[in-house]
Amino acid sequence: MNRSDELVAASVAAGVDVCFANPGTTEMPLVDAIRRSDGMRPVLVLFEGVASGAADGYARISGKPASVLLHLGPGLGNATANLHNARRAQSPVVAWVGDHPDWLVDHDPPLTSDIEAIARGTSRWVQRVQSAETMGTIAREAVQAALGPESGVATLVIPMDFQEAVVPDGAATASDAAPLAPDFVALDSSDVDALAGKLRGASSPLILLGGPGTATDCVAAGASIAESVGGLLLLERFPRYLRRAPGLPAPARLQYLPMMARAQLMKHDLVVAIGVEPPSCFFGYAGERPELTAEGAELLQPCLGGQDPSALLAALVEAIGASGSPSQVAGKSEPFVRSGALAADSACAVLASLLPEDAIVVDEGITSSIPLYPTLEGAAPHHYLACKGGSIGFGTPVSTGAAVAAPGRRVVTWVGDGSAAYTLQSLWTQAREGLDVTTLVLVNDRYAILQLELARGGFPIEEQSLDLTDLGRPTIDWVKLAQGFGVPAEAVTDTDGLHDALGRSFATPGPTLITIPVE
Amino acid sequence: MNRSDELVAASVAAGVDVCFANPGTTEMPLVDAIRRSDGMRPVLVLFEGVASGAADGYARISGKPASVLLHLGPGLGNATANLHNARRAQSPVVAWVGDHPDWLVDHDPPLTSDIEAIARGTSRWVQRVQSAETMGTIAREAVQAALGPESGVATLVIPMDFQEAVVPDGAATASDAAPLAPDFVALDSSDVDALAGKLRGASSPLILLGGPGTATDCVAAGASIAESVGGLLLLERFPRYLRRAPGLPAPARLQYLPMMARAQLMKHDLVVAIGVEPPSCFFGYAGERPELTAEGAELLQPCLGGQDPSALLAALVEAIGASGSPSQVAGKSEPFVRSGALAADSACAVLASLLPEDAIVVDEGITSSIPLYPTLEGAAPHHYLACKGGSIGFGTPVSTGAAVAAPGRRVVTWVGDGSAAYTLQSLWTQAREGLDVTTLVLVNDRYAILQLELARGGFPIEEQSLDLTDLGRPTIDWVKLAQGFGVPAEAVTDTDGLHDALGRSFATPGPTLITIPVE
Repeated sequence: MNRSDELVAASVAAGVDVCFANPGTTEMPLVDAIRRSDGMRPVLVLFEGVASGAADGYARISGKPASVLLHLGPGLGNATANLHNARRAQSPVVAWVGDHPDWLVDHDPPLTSDIEAIARGTSRWVQRVQSAETMGTIAREAVQAALGPESGVATLVIPMDFQEAVVPDGAATASDAAPLAPDFVALDSSDVDALAGKLRGASSPLILLGGPGTATDCVAAGASIAESVGGLLLLERFPRYLRRAPGLPAPARLQYLPMMARAQLMKHDLVVAIGVEPPSCFFGYAGERPELTAEGAELLQPCLGGQDPSALLAALVEAIGASGSPSQVAGKSEPFVRSGALAADSACAVLASLLPEDAIVVDEGITSSIPLYPTLEGAAPHHYLACKGGSIGFGTPVSTGAAVAAPGRRVVTWVGDGSAAYTLQSLWTQAREGLDVTTLVLVNDRYAILQLELARGGFPIEEQSLDLTDLGRPTIDWVKLAQGFGVPAEAVTDTDGLHDALGRSFATPGPTLITIPVE
Repeated sequence: MNRSDELVAASVAAGVDVCFANPGTTEMPLVDAIRRSDGMRPVLVLFEGVASGAADGYARISGKPASVLLHLGPGLGNATANLHNARRAQSPVVAWVGDHPDWLVDHDPPLTSDIEAIARGTSRWVQRVQSAETMGTIAREAVQAALGPESGVATLVIPMDFQEAVVPDGAATASDAAPLAPDFVALDSSDVDALAGKLRGASSPLILLGGPGTATDCVAAGASIAESVGGLLLLERFPRYLRRAPGLPAPARLQYLPMMARAQLMKHDLVVAIGVEPPSCFFGYAGERPELTAEGAELLQPCLGGQDPSALLAALVEAIGASGSPSQVAGKSEPFVRSGALAADSACAVLASLLPEDAIVVDEGITSSIPLYPTLEGAAPHHYLACKGGSIGFGTPVSTGAAVAAPGRRVVTWVGDGSAAYTLQSLWTQAREGLDVTTLVLVNDRYAILQLELARGGFPIEEQSLDLTDLGRPTIDWVKLAQGFGVPAEAVTDTDGLHDALGRSFATPGPTLITIPVE
């Protein structure tokens, strides 16, 4: 047994059971230890941004922390964009980054860089293994740091000599310790009562849920409290996870454009943000102020001290005397499917009409996503995952990890063509692992959101500025790209074609990709 | 005129004439300014790692600094691996990273992260624009920082409000200042004389050239000095740039494996490292010591104070009384091309037999590259670019930038299948810009280098550990991937087929991809 075995065993004991890996020479002892481990599933990816996004998706669906195995600073760099998204989604992700042996790193060989600096851009906890003896302990600390009370990314840098070090016979290891859970701070009942009083006393209170506060029990409690105090429940713009089904509350989300978000918030004199930061502009347009709440509104963040959103909301239901079962819930609706031309809204309707029960929908459609959330409201019960962090290249990796976490359930990736081009290597891992992922690429041959932003910013829309937002020269053949990575694919041109193609995909195990033309 | 125009104009004046861009909302004013500029060529990429690699390749071939335009911390993260390679190659690259407006960033909107932290992993200079008035000055400082005396990556973070700010009428701007050059420290003639004395006095001196010290004049001078003092000229393992032609010196490179590198260095009592750090292990294997030089050998680094390697070597030629024209040079050789089975060595021979004059060869073949450098020695005059930094995903982006810098010349990417999968989006930009790039993908359906490393590390080669190094489940169809991005492609199966396909590619403007099966 070497210290890599100990790290893996300690992490498995703490609750980590999957590793999305793109290893290199400095991770070979860890690769071998993962092979020997019974409890850790290795999943190979072709690019590190797939690993970090998949870990995020796995954590969102399984409720467990996930690990990634990365090669030195550059490997961590490649993982950074989706680690950013995981951080913003408060998904527990442990990043194991191999480094040169301790005795070499001061000699600055070519692959050396400041790994900790890169990690600090995304990680709430960054440590370097300082001695082989601490390997099990620090592996467990990394999992706890990822779980939080506020969960996120924990990066552990592991010099290769410590990975290889042999564990002396009879040495104690952390491999049979208990699973870890978030280390929440206990609620103070007087704080709960005070908050209940504030909610009762406000003329128009708003409960804003986000991060872990969009869990199913939290949304039900929040909706019930809001009904009880005559207020409103709102979700953050891009929730990390949301269970949607007839009979569950169907709260609106905070709007993306500041003007529309302000209109949602303007009448509320009290905003209670739970699991989420105070609402501010997503981007800063000239002439805006940063806060979205009404001027003079009171803003409370009752979980800032490390309290559990779920426990707080349950306690608030009690304190307020709410029913816990909100009366305003989603119904079941038959989406209106037109035969004919495809556009984002008609494609959403076809999807809503066919969505398998318990499917997972990963949303990175950007401008093509506008009709997705409302259209799916009355569809079969499903799970909805959005990109809170805003970093592009999110959808296909997150779907990959979600599918690893949910065998037997269908995962649907709703993704714009520009977005899909960042981390398309996900498709290969979907084929390799036989994952039931249906990737719907919304093709408009442009970064439509940037063309909107150019127009909004008052910039003249001339050919040359459009050129830096244009994906049509040459057009990307997504069918060939998918096939190149081993994923069956087809292009559809109308709603009937999409209906048939989706039906085939949902009936066939393994991944599929379908391209859908949109404006 | 706004401050974005000023930044672009100041950078053009300083010598930057290309921008590899993957912009987002926080860079729209810069996108518009680049459109308005006459002197800055914008090149759109689908993924930021393509931008940073292309800037590196452009700088290596043009001798000029190149810029990249990136979206916030995640965009910078995606560019990090190839910024690492640019840093190690001492390629002057200016990274412009848009950020939220100053008034919003403290409110921590979703796309906020510690951009400077991420940048410090790769950049020798990191600054944030602190006021609109300083935009032109700091843009110029960024270019100077990239040029050095030691060149590398300079990252400038540019809040969006400052990008949009209008330049008052009559305000002075830096747009008509002179082009910049590396800010070398002058040579001290007594230091040169002392170094010449050391070289003459050593029993077996070795001159090791790397970084900017592999420029054509440096190699000629180094070879002449080595001949004159009875010593040896050696190049670093993976030179950033090397001109190769009959009649030019053909020095060996430092070997990759420590044992072989030690054998190269063991008899040398003096090592003079110019433009490059002292030779150390590339990876640290148990039982090694970090230094590769013989124990007791003297090591000198005469350019550490910021002196120009080219000027130093010219002065050393004078001080030693060397001819400046080395007698041992490469001849012209006819490569031996067998008809029959393809392997890395036979594919190299076919390439050497057909290589167009003045072609640029970008080497990221990893295990398939072993025969490339020696086989090309007698080929037509060409330029050779290797991946000093060791971060994978280098080849196709660097070729893209090299081709932008060298219209009318053929660029050949020699790249392993594992490597090519990191940044395959490069192919789209090659098609978009009509670049004359021939991509040769060496396909062995595995990370062969890692399987070697597993074996070398004494790990049992069992199916499950091989699985994390295996690319054959499913096999990747590179022809379809290339076609998907608009690049014509074909697979060859024997040397005659490669000969014909290469001939077609070299005769046809624009990009091509050819897959070559290897072991």
